[in-house]
Amino acid sequence: MESAIPSHLQTARSRHRRVPDDYAPPYPSFVARHKPAVASVIMAYFGVQFRGEPTAAATEALARIATRFAGENGPTHWDRAQYVDQAGFTNVVSVAYWDDAGRFDAWFGGAREAWTGGNAGDAVGRFIEVLRPHVARYETLFSSLGRPEGVAVLADGMSGEVQEHAYWGGMRDRIPLSQTDAMTPGGEPRVIRDGARIRVVAHDNLCLIRSGQDWSDTETSERKMYLDDVEPVLREGMDFLRDDGVPIGCYANRYMRVVDAQGRPTEKSYGQSWWKSLAALERWAESHPTHVRIFGAAMKYLSTLGPAAKLRLYHEVTVAAADEQFFEYLGCHESTGMLNAVQVAAAPAA
Amino acid sequence: MESAIPSHLQTARSRHRRVPDDYAPPYPSFVARHKPAVASVIMAYFGVQFRGEPTAAATEALARIATRFAGENGPTHWDRAQYVDQAGFTNVVSVAYWDDAGRFDAWFGGAREAWTGGNAGDAVGRFIEVLRPHVARYETLFSSLGRPEGVAVLADGMSGEVQEHAYWGGMRDRIPLSQTDAMTPGGEPRVIRDGARIRVVAHDNLCLIRSGQDWSDTETSERKMYLDDVEPVLREGMDFLRDDGVPIGCYANRYMRVVDAQGRPTEKSYGQSWWKSLAALERWAESHPTHVRIFGAAMKYLSTLGPAAKLRLYHEVTVAAADEQFFEYLGCHESTGMLNAVQVAAAPAA
Repeated sequence: MESAIPSHLQTARSRHRRVPDDYAPPYPSFVARHKPAVASVIMAYFGVQFRGEPTAAATEALARIATRFAGENGPTHWDRAQYVDQAGFTNVVSVAYWDDAGRFDAWFGGAREAWTGGNAGDAVGRFIEVLRPHVARYETLFSSLGRPEGVAVLADGMSGEVQEHAYWGGMRDRIPLSQTDAMTPGGEPRVIRDGARIRVVAHDNLCLIRSGQDWSDTETSERKMYLDDVEPVLREGMDFLRDDGVPIGCYANRYMRVVDAQGRPTEKSYGQSWWKSLAALERWAESHPTHVRIFGAAMKYLSTLGPAAKLRLYHEVTVAAADEQFFEYLGCHESTGMLNAVQVAAAPAA
Repeated sequence: MESAIPSHLQTARSRHRRVPDDYAPPYPSFVARHKPAVASVIMAYFGVQFRGEPTAAATEALARIATRFAGENGPTHWDRAQYVDQAGFTNVVSVAYWDDAGRFDAWFGGAREAWTGGNAGDAVGRFIEVLRPHVARYETLFSSLGRPEGVAVLADGMSGEVQEHAYWGGMRDRIPLSQTDAMTPGGEPRVIRDGARIRVVAHDNLCLIRSGQDWSDTETSERKMYLDDVEPVLREGMDFLRDDGVPIGCYANRYMRVVDAQGRPTEKSYGQSWWKSLAALERWAESHPTHVRIFGAAMKYLSTLGPAAKLRLYHEVTVAAADEQFFEYLGCHESTGMLNAVQVAAAPAA
């Protein structure tokens, strides 16, 4: 049993963990371990937004960003997913990860200019949402080994069984900064207009979660259980956050289906949401009936099946400093991503 | 909105609350407020144990303790409840409350002698379980005003709406000592034999919860919902703790039905359990499917019905120092109360 916080990020505490030192979780979980030399990571979401079938402009944009990802200083890992949002638009989001800020900075300028620099007339909305957190400002969690996802693909490897999970508050306790900081949000999101581009300047300690499930290995009864019992409850929770999240601090939620290189749906999905604070995410997770049911089902499921479970669950949660964020929208509807956190009349995408 | 911790018990913190200062609970709850002059309270459980119908000795014991309660230096409040335990014995428990240690001490010597002092031959098991916590070592919570129960009957009054509730960790955050102390348990329970009497010396930071429900005011659909949907789930959780609690730190659990002055069941019940630590109670409450369902149902129920709910819920939770405890058993079976926490071959009760 080891701490989710790697030894090189352990500091003298001014804030306690929620569990005693002899706490033993009821089932195993694991976290990604970066090399100690990694100081920060970059998580960059590039979205296109359109109504109905993909337009030529959307298809071309997706091909071009893929080419850029493969080019010099491109990300170590990226994947692509899509969903239909509350306004009926399809959003295809390509998420790319770096663990070297120098390489990202060398790459990003050209990619940004190509993505949101001057294509307002091409009838496809585009957005860029980037966090570049210090490694003390995020955590990961995996229910099993052998198939890292998201930022964990960049890691040097996975931990052994960690202690800080399977209780409310584990998410916070896994973030190294929680040893000394309450990670309280500061300020309100505001808008900067730059021609047709709209940037959102959020606030200190904005929170991002990407929480995924992979049912591709499940068979018969386990697959049926996931699809019939778990997925509908998960979808209900995701829909609630998408449609009614703002009053409880969820600025935006996307329940995404991962797609393959040909754009076809895979048997993986993830929820990705922007939150006013880690505390707001904690409160929803602990008290919203849909998530309480998901958690209860997962506790029972993983405690019972243990290593025999084929369903794979993971997440990554970041609490970003004000200067670790970048949000830019071009031609998107006004409820897109962090635009949903501010009052703005944006140009419709199509 | 006020803190559950009364102002005269607020201290400079070395440990943080689990929620931010701007946390707003989704429904109201209240706590008992004692006069600041009250330094400690006494919670004294007097049990008789027998098989089948009450024996003459049991009936006489119950009458005699009631007379003593009404006598000089007797408790400010007491009530009586009963249940059938895992060994098939009926246990009738009279719980008495004082808020003046001097009065309790003046009263207790004679009562103890009469209860466990020399009646081993009367074919009824007897036990005494007493906590006398400093006021910084316990908390209460009520879903509504107007009908205090348990230790709250002694209080000067009830609070306004308090902030620290409706989230996991609220129980701990309401205990004043949590401002500076993790309340970690220390040591293992051990036995002291004193003739036929068996005393259990537990350990520092032993935890007691009395958690009650009163459905006497509910009507039609609400009553049906409580009896059909909530009570069976509650019972399942109570049975789990009674039968399988020890490995997770629950030494003993009693799911009690409150009885009236004639010994007839009322429409009130409570669970009373002894725990190795507050942390163990927290983990069960948060992760056991039965309690997670209870909590989820209560959240939804109270958030929806609000003040219209007629079901009354309350609890009191104490984390007692080693010198604030007293456990004594005479003629009880070996799984009675805190005897269940130690290995002891006790004389059967009948």
